[in-house]
Amino acid sequence: MVRITSSHNPRLKALAELKERKGRTHQGRFLIEGAREIERALKAGIELEAAIASEALSDEEARVRSGLRVEHLELPETLFKRLSSRENPAGLIAVGRIPKRSLADLVIPPNALILVAVGLEKPGNLGSVLRSADAAGADAVLVAGGVDLYSPQVIRNSTGTIFSLPTIPASDSEILSWLQQHKIPLVASTPHAQMLFWQADLRGKVAIVVGPEHQGLSEGWLEGASIRVRIPMQGQADSLNVAVSAALLLYEARRQRSHRA
Amino acid sequence: MVRITSSHNPRLKALAELKERKGRTHQGRFLIEGAREIERALKAGIELEAAIASEALSDEEARVRSGLRVEHLELPETLFKRLSSRENPAGLIAVGRIPKRSLADLVIPPNALILVAVGLEKPGNLGSVLRSADAAGADAVLVAGGVDLYSPQVIRNSTGTIFSLPTIPASDSEILSWLQQHKIPLVASTPHAQMLFWQADLRGKVAIVVGPEHQGLSEGWLEGASIRVRIPMQGQADSLNVAVSAALLLYEARRQRSHRA
Repeated sequence: MVRITSSHNPRLKALAELKERKGRTHQGRFLIEGAREIERALKAGIELEAAIASEALSDEEARVRSGLRVEHLELPETLFKRLSSRENPAGLIAVGRIPKRSLADLVIPPNALILVAVGLEKPGNLGSVLRSADAAGADAVLVAGGVDLYSPQVIRNSTGTIFSLPTIPASDSEILSWLQQHKIPLVASTPHAQMLFWQADLRGKVAIVVGPEHQGLSEGWLEGASIRVRIPMQGQADSLNVAVSAALLLYEARRQRSHRA
Repeated sequence: MVRITSSHNPRLKALAELKERKGRTHQGRFLIEGAREIERALKAGIELEAAIASEALSDEEARVRSGLRVEHLELPETLFKRLSSRENPAGLIAVGRIPKRSLADLVIPPNALILVAVGLEKPGNLGSVLRSADAAGADAVLVAGGVDLYSPQVIRNSTGTIFSLPTIPASDSEILSWLQQHKIPLVASTPHAQMLFWQADLRGKVAIVVGPEHQGLSEGWLEGASIRVRIPMQGQADSLNVAVSAALLLYEARRQRSHRA
């Protein structure tokens, strides 16, 4: 057990750098805050290196902590807060190694349901998209550009599903050619399409692509899509939250598939 | 034009109280931050009493401000921030009167699609639910308990649709008896139901009730529902965001209705 008591401690500084994308990229590590999130990371085989406990540890956090065979650090609450990304900090944070997941390793079932998230700008939104994809039973989420997948807010809003769900960062062109190679049709949601999303046939293997709320998908993605669909909007609002759009399309695919013999 | 320059100004203090529920209830007023939100409030007939401008006003905000026939206040940025509820404050905030909307005034079409939001604990979630309901074309949202409808975060996440969409706070029993009186069947979403949400007939008039994410709906609401449905969950996560659940149910009703002759 290592106890850190000084705010000038170099180890503390190195850990605090993991709150930012630059630090994560540099160190190849990221922070996992909260007992539930740490358990989901463990279960998914994420390699943990250290567990950082606040003095204000809950019983549940103490239980999870005692099961972790990693280096243990302990911090006073005031210093622990510097590593937390929550308004009400948890009492336990783990340090994990960023997994190397690539498209080449992805094994997908014959009738794959894949979500592609392009250029999302808010970590909270990307996290919520992952939570929706997990619930709807997507086989994988491919993440092109936008916010860093391992940002604390992504992990938090995903409620830890980022670990269990195959989630792979890749470039636009890598994803487009992987989909072509596996003959997976791309379905793009855009307000300019004629076809409503429930009119498209989503029963076979399919990749659904969603983009940033305001700009929408780029021309490249729209041209790469063999099917373009629209979510009808009835009211004043000009767009839905991207996690809502993703859920509507994924669950529509689920609904259609449930009717098959 | 009134210029406030002191942080001890009593008017500023009274305005800052509107950030909290207690102050809003006491004064019968609320704050509307941002040009888009103010425009939607105006369009929906919300009575505005004052417009507060920061020195850092954008062109768009200056345009909206110049159209407002209300008392005008101007604040230096440092004081303006005290009224803002955003991490990156807008440059314009309006003071509106809380509208008196009651169930008795609600006029609904024959085939009404109504959403009931019960006991939501996060203002952001209630706002997102309103945004989903607006997009899906709900005729009204009835809000029972939970966070205050006029909290800044509700308005923000609703992207201002709180104004255009008939949104009515009422008690559990008021809503249940209003639904009975109008013979509107209640559909409750609960993980314990057998029927999947796309198996229910949502083509006729219907009220869909969603509750807080973790506790779910109380027995009273479940017993009041003539139809109980489940959103199937495939993954690790045990619940969906409530705005996602609301959107799935409302859009399923839309889908079913679109097939009618």
